[in-house]
Amino acid sequence: MNKKGLLLVFSGPSGVGKGTVLKEYLSRHPHTAFSVSATTRAPREGEIHGQHYFFLSQKEFDQLVERKGFLEHAQFAGNCYGTPRKAVEENLEKGIDVVLEIEVQGALQVKEQCPDAVLVFVMPPSFTELSRRLSGRGTEDETTVARRLSNAAREMEAAKRYDYILVNQTVEEAASQLEQIVCAAKHTARYLNKFIEEVEDDAKTCCK
Amino acid sequence: MNKKGLLLVFSGPSGVGKGTVLKEYLSRHPHTAFSVSATTRAPREGEIHGQHYFFLSQKEFDQLVERKGFLEHAQFAGNCYGTPRKAVEENLEKGIDVVLEIEVQGALQVKEQCPDAVLVFVMPPSFTELSRRLSGRGTEDETTVARRLSNAAREMEAAKRYDYILVNQTVEEAASQLEQIVCAAKHTARYLNKFIEEVEDDAKTCCK
Repeated sequence: MNKKGLLLVFSGPSGVGKGTVLKEYLSRHPHTAFSVSATTRAPREGEIHGQHYFFLSQKEFDQLVERKGFLEHAQFAGNCYGTPRKAVEENLEKGIDVVLEIEVQGALQVKEQCPDAVLVFVMPPSFTELSRRLSGRGTEDETTVARRLSNAAREMEAAKRYDYILVNQTVEEAASQLEQIVCAAKHTARYLNKFIEEVEDDAKTCCK
Repeated sequence: MNKKGLLLVFSGPSGVGKGTVLKEYLSRHPHTAFSVSATTRAPREGEIHGQHYFFLSQKEFDQLVERKGFLEHAQFAGNCYGTPRKAVEENLEKGIDVVLEIEVQGALQVKEQCPDAVLVFVMPPSFTELSRRLSGRGTEDETTVARRLSNAAREMEAAKRYDYILVNQTVEEAASQLEQIVCAAKHTARYLNKFIEEVEDDAKTCCK
């Protein structure tokens, strides 16, 4: 049987609740590793190095890029973000599933480099519902909400390029959907490639 | 939301227990339709027309082929077998999932015609185990068992072309795996295409 871990890439528009769904999923599957991203932006209050992000200087970041130390990396609002490759690959080799929560651009980079990665895009039940959730926070003015909705609309254009779509009606339900997706992904012919070959070899020996 | 049914194509070598797994799955999901194949072979004792097979004359079968009445059809040991298209399409339109239990050749024909079909191949935990199950029936002589094993080895070569692999350790477990595969298949970006488009259109109106 294939014992390699599954690489799960998780994206979705801001406000869709992907962090909450992931938190629920990870609490049900504590052996799944969550990949901590690296960034050149300054830590915000309360953010811990190695837990929320690896905070790197621009020089450190560039050196890692040069050494192909990132699985994917991209720039946003003048700051660099990236997924350190080593921890991901080590976990997968050990048979541990790894979750990346990254934006669309990075997710598609990962898919190119790791065709076995499973890309999951979280969608709201409707755009009206996303709009309601973003406005309902009450922490941002109308212009900010409008900008975030416009960003969300743009981000969702990539949904079709993902493998699976998770519709976030309730957190519990979405986490259960994710569990089913992970189980199914471990039953694709691609994932079980080695197992199929083993049985085939076995068959050749048997039927000689 | 997409309300079209899922077309599930189920194959696997003789002796792997796919019929038993399907029976368990269908008992858990009685609203899933099982497609009854048509054949030109004579009914065996106890076989009922419309339940086990639609028993057709060669002329009737050929006419249906000509009218594109089959989703797939093939010949085995001088007899013709086919999946009547109409019942399958009607059920899918009504939002009812449809299961076909057909051999490899037909399954790959279906995939070509219906790219949305989900192909599931049932494998034994090992070839030795399949050999044990086939010999253990005790109803066939050694030559027959050897021939069936050799057929199984050949059939399994197609496993990699299927979407999902179901490993039949126990019937209950395999049926549960199938449930997860069906749920996940209903969350692929391909299956939820219409839903994605709806949310996108909604977004365009919202962000105008």
